[in-house]
Amino acid sequence: MISDSLGINNKNHLTIGGLDTLNIAKEFGTPVYVMDETQIRKNCRLYLDSIKEACGDKGLALYASKAFSCMYMCKLVAEEGMGLDVVSGGELYTAHKAGFPMEKVYFHGNNKTPDELKMAIDFGVGRVVVDNSYELQTLNKLACTEGKTAKVLFRVKPGIDAHTHDFIMTGQVDSKFGFGLETGDAMEILHVAKQLPNIDVVGLHCHIGSQIFDKEPFLEAAEVMTNFIADATAETGIVFKELNLGGGYGIRYVETDNPIGYDEYIGAVAEIVRKIAYNRGIEMPMLLMEPGRSIVGSAGITLYTVGVVKDIPGIRKYVSVDGGMADNPRFIMYDAEYTAIVANNASAEPTEQVTVAGKCCESGDLIIKNATVPRIEVGDTLAILSTGAYNYSMASNYNRIPKPPVVMVREGMAKLIIKRETYEDVLKNDIC
Amino acid sequence: MISDSLGINNKNHLTIGGLDTLNIAKEFGTPVYVMDETQIRKNCRLYLDSIKEACGDKGLALYASKAFSCMYMCKLVAEEGMGLDVVSGGELYTAHKAGFPMEKVYFHGNNKTPDELKMAIDFGVGRVVVDNSYELQTLNKLACTEGKTAKVLFRVKPGIDAHTHDFIMTGQVDSKFGFGLETGDAMEILHVAKQLPNIDVVGLHCHIGSQIFDKEPFLEAAEVMTNFIADATAETGIVFKELNLGGGYGIRYVETDNPIGYDEYIGAVAEIVRKIAYNRGIEMPMLLMEPGRSIVGSAGITLYTVGVVKDIPGIRKYVSVDGGMADNPRFIMYDAEYTAIVANNASAEPTEQVTVAGKCCESGDLIIKNATVPRIEVGDTLAILSTGAYNYSMASNYNRIPKPPVVMVREGMAKLIIKRETYEDVLKNDIC
Repeated sequence: MISDSLGINNKNHLTIGGLDTLNIAKEFGTPVYVMDETQIRKNCRLYLDSIKEACGDKGLALYASKAFSCMYMCKLVAEEGMGLDVVSGGELYTAHKAGFPMEKVYFHGNNKTPDELKMAIDFGVGRVVVDNSYELQTLNKLACTEGKTAKVLFRVKPGIDAHTHDFIMTGQVDSKFGFGLETGDAMEILHVAKQLPNIDVVGLHCHIGSQIFDKEPFLEAAEVMTNFIADATAETGIVFKELNLGGGYGIRYVETDNPIGYDEYIGAVAEIVRKIAYNRGIEMPMLLMEPGRSIVGSAGITLYTVGVVKDIPGIRKYVSVDGGMADNPRFIMYDAEYTAIVANNASAEPTEQVTVAGKCCESGDLIIKNATVPRIEVGDTLAILSTGAYNYSMASNYNRIPKPPVVMVREGMAKLIIKRETYEDVLKNDIC
Repeated sequence: MISDSLGINNKNHLTIGGLDTLNIAKEFGTPVYVMDETQIRKNCRLYLDSIKEACGDKGLALYASKAFSCMYMCKLVAEEGMGLDVVSGGELYTAHKAGFPMEKVYFHGNNKTPDELKMAIDFGVGRVVVDNSYELQTLNKLACTEGKTAKVLFRVKPGIDAHTHDFIMTGQVDSKFGFGLETGDAMEILHVAKQLPNIDVVGLHCHIGSQIFDKEPFLEAAEVMTNFIADATAETGIVFKELNLGGGYGIRYVETDNPIGYDEYIGAVAEIVRKIAYNRGIEMPMLLMEPGRSIVGSAGITLYTVGVVKDIPGIRKYVSVDGGMADNPRFIMYDAEYTAIVANNASAEPTEQVTVAGKCCESGDLIIKNATVPRIEVGDTLAILSTGAYNYSMASNYNRIPKPPVVMVREGMAKLIIKRETYEDVLKNDIC
C-alpha cells in the first residue's frame, strides 16, 4: 500500500483508518473524498517533532492550507500547534471563522488585493509574506491608516531549479513570485522596507516548487538564503529573525514515487543554516517550513462507483466512474499519475491495463491512463489513492456537477466535515 | 476586434454591447465575466436560420449548455426556439428550474448514473443520447418501471480525426464516448435496442471534437453517419428520424484563428446528407447540431484589475491580475491562447510582450504567455476576450477564491445574471 492509512479487512475490502471503505461509500454515497485524521495528525507531528529536534523552539511548521482548506482542517492544525500558510482572502477567512490563532498565520500571494491586505491587518495575521514592492507600499499605507505595524517576510527567488513539472517550479528567476536575488531586487526592497514606518522586517521566505523528490534543491535553497541573510544584514543592518523555506516535499502517488524522509531533510537543512550562520557571524534565524501536500495528500482517497466498462479490443479498455475532472483535475492539468484499487476486491492481483475515465463531457476527462488493475465490473467501488491534496481544493462545478463531500475518519468513526453540494447549491447564485 | 460585441468609445474605453467596460467593472467589481446578449442571440439565429434554410422544418440547433449553463441562458435559448444539449443531472436540473421545454432537451454523457437517467425520465426529456449498452439496459428498466418509453439516439464514433488538441478530439475509435463503427458495436446495439420494449430508437449522434477550424472533418462525419444510417436501416429495418452531428465549431481566441462560416458549413452538410439519403433510398433524417462555444464564446469577456507589474529585465514581464486559473483554467489545462486588451486604453498600439498571470499560488497560473499589449500600469482594467465559453462553467474555488459574477449586457443595460460568490458561500458546506 502506498499509504499507511490503508489496509485490507477480512471481507477483502479496502480500509482507511481501519474503516471499511464500502461502508463509507454506502453511508455517504459516491463520489466521496475520505481522509484519515490519525494519519494527518501523525504527519503534522512528524514535522513538528523533527523541527523541534533540529531547532528547539526556534522552528515552526506551517500547514499550507491551499492543499486542502476547510474549517475542520484549520481547527485540527491549530490543535496540533502548527502555524498556517494562507494564500488568499478566502483561506484567511476560513482560518478566521475556524478560530485559528491569527498570530500564527502567514499570508502569501503574488497579487494580494488591497481588500485582502486590509483583511490581514484587521484580523491581525502574524506575518504578511510580501511578494513585490507595490504590495509593500500598499501594506505600509494600510497599516499606517489603522495605526499598526505589519510584520513582514519577503519572498525571494533563490534561483534554484527544482527538477519538477514546469508548471510547479517556482524558485527560478523567471517566476511571477517574489524578488530575484540575482537581479538585486531582493536587496533593494530591504533598503526600501527599512525606511517604511509601519513595516517591521522579520525575515525572508522562499519556495522552490512542488512535488519535489530530491533533497539537494532544498539544501541548496537553505544555503543560498542563509548566505543572503548574512549579506543583507551586513549591507542593511536588518536582523532577520525568521527564515521560511516554504514547502514542496513530494508524496507517493504511485509505487515508483520515492519521497525523501521529511524528518531527515529538516535536520540536514537546520545543520546547513546553523553552520553558515555561525561562519558568517549572524544569529541563527527561526526556521519555518510549509508542508501542505505531505500533510494531507496520502491521507486521502476518493471513492467512486464504476458505471461503465467499455472494452475496445486491441485499443483500450475504459472504466468510467461517477466523478472525474470536476473533482480531480490533476490529470488534465499536470498529467498527474494515480493509483487505483478496487475497494470491494482489494487484494486481487492486477491482471489488466485500463484507463479510468470520468463522467464529464470531455475526452481529456481521465483520472488514470493505463492503470494496472484486476478485472473491474460495473458497480465496483474504485478507490483512487493520494487524493487528499489539491483535489477538493481544486474541484469545480464543470458540467454543473456538485462537489463531493469530505469525510474524516477518526478512531473508528466516519465524520462528515464538508457536506455534499446539492443541485440547488450549484445554482444558488443564478438570477433569471 | 476579434468579436463583433466589442468596440471603443470616445473615452478610449473598450465597450461590450455598446456599454463602457470601465463602468461595468466599477459597478460589479472585478474579476467579472461580461457577456453580450445581442451577440448571443445573433449567434443562435445564425444557426437557426441556416438550418431552416438548409433543411426547412427538418432541422434543429441545440445549445450545448456545458459551454455555459445557468438559468438565464436556458431561458434565453428557449426564447430563441433552440433545443438544449445537457450532459449531467446538474445541467438538466438547471434547464428544468428555468422552465426549459423538456421535449427539446437532449441528454448526453458517457456515464449517466441511474439517478440521472431516472431524473431524465421523470422530467420527460426529449431524447436520451445513449452512450453504451449498460446505459441502454438501465434506461429500459427504468422506463419500464415508470410505464414510459424512452426516445433515444445512439452516440456513434465515426472514426474521424478532427485535427484538434488531443484532449478535445472525441470522434476517433479510442474514446470513452459512444459505440465504435469499425468495431461493429454500433450496429450490434441497434439489434439489441430493437428488442427492448421501452426503448424507441429515434436516431444517431456523433461528435468529433472541439474548437475545430476545418470544414472537412464535419463533412466526412456527415457522410460516414448517413451511410451508416442507410446500412443500419437495411440491416435492422429501423427508420432513423434524426441525425445529430454534434458540435465542435471553432471560434476566435486570437487574431490568427480562422473559424469556418457556420452557415456555410451547415448548408454543405445538409447537401451531403440529402444526396446520400437520396442515393441510398432512405428518408432524409432531421438534422441536429449542437453549438456551444460558438454561441457564447466570443460574446463574453473577463474584466480584471491589474495588481502587480513585475519586470524581470531580459527575462519576462509579469502582469498579475485579480483572478486567474480559478476563473479561467484553460491555459493550465490546454495551453489555450487568449487576447488581452487594456480596457481603459483600448486603442493603444501594442508595444511590448508580457505574461498575464493570475493570483493563485501556483506557477502555472497564467492567463496568457507572451501577450502583445501596450504598456500596462497597476490599476488598469484588463479585458481577456472570448471567455464566454468554458470559463464560468469550469471555474473552481481553488485557493478558496469565490467565483466571479456574470453580467449580461442588453439594449444598453447591464444585468447581473449570476451573483458573485461570497466567502460565506465558499465555506457554506463546511462542518466543524
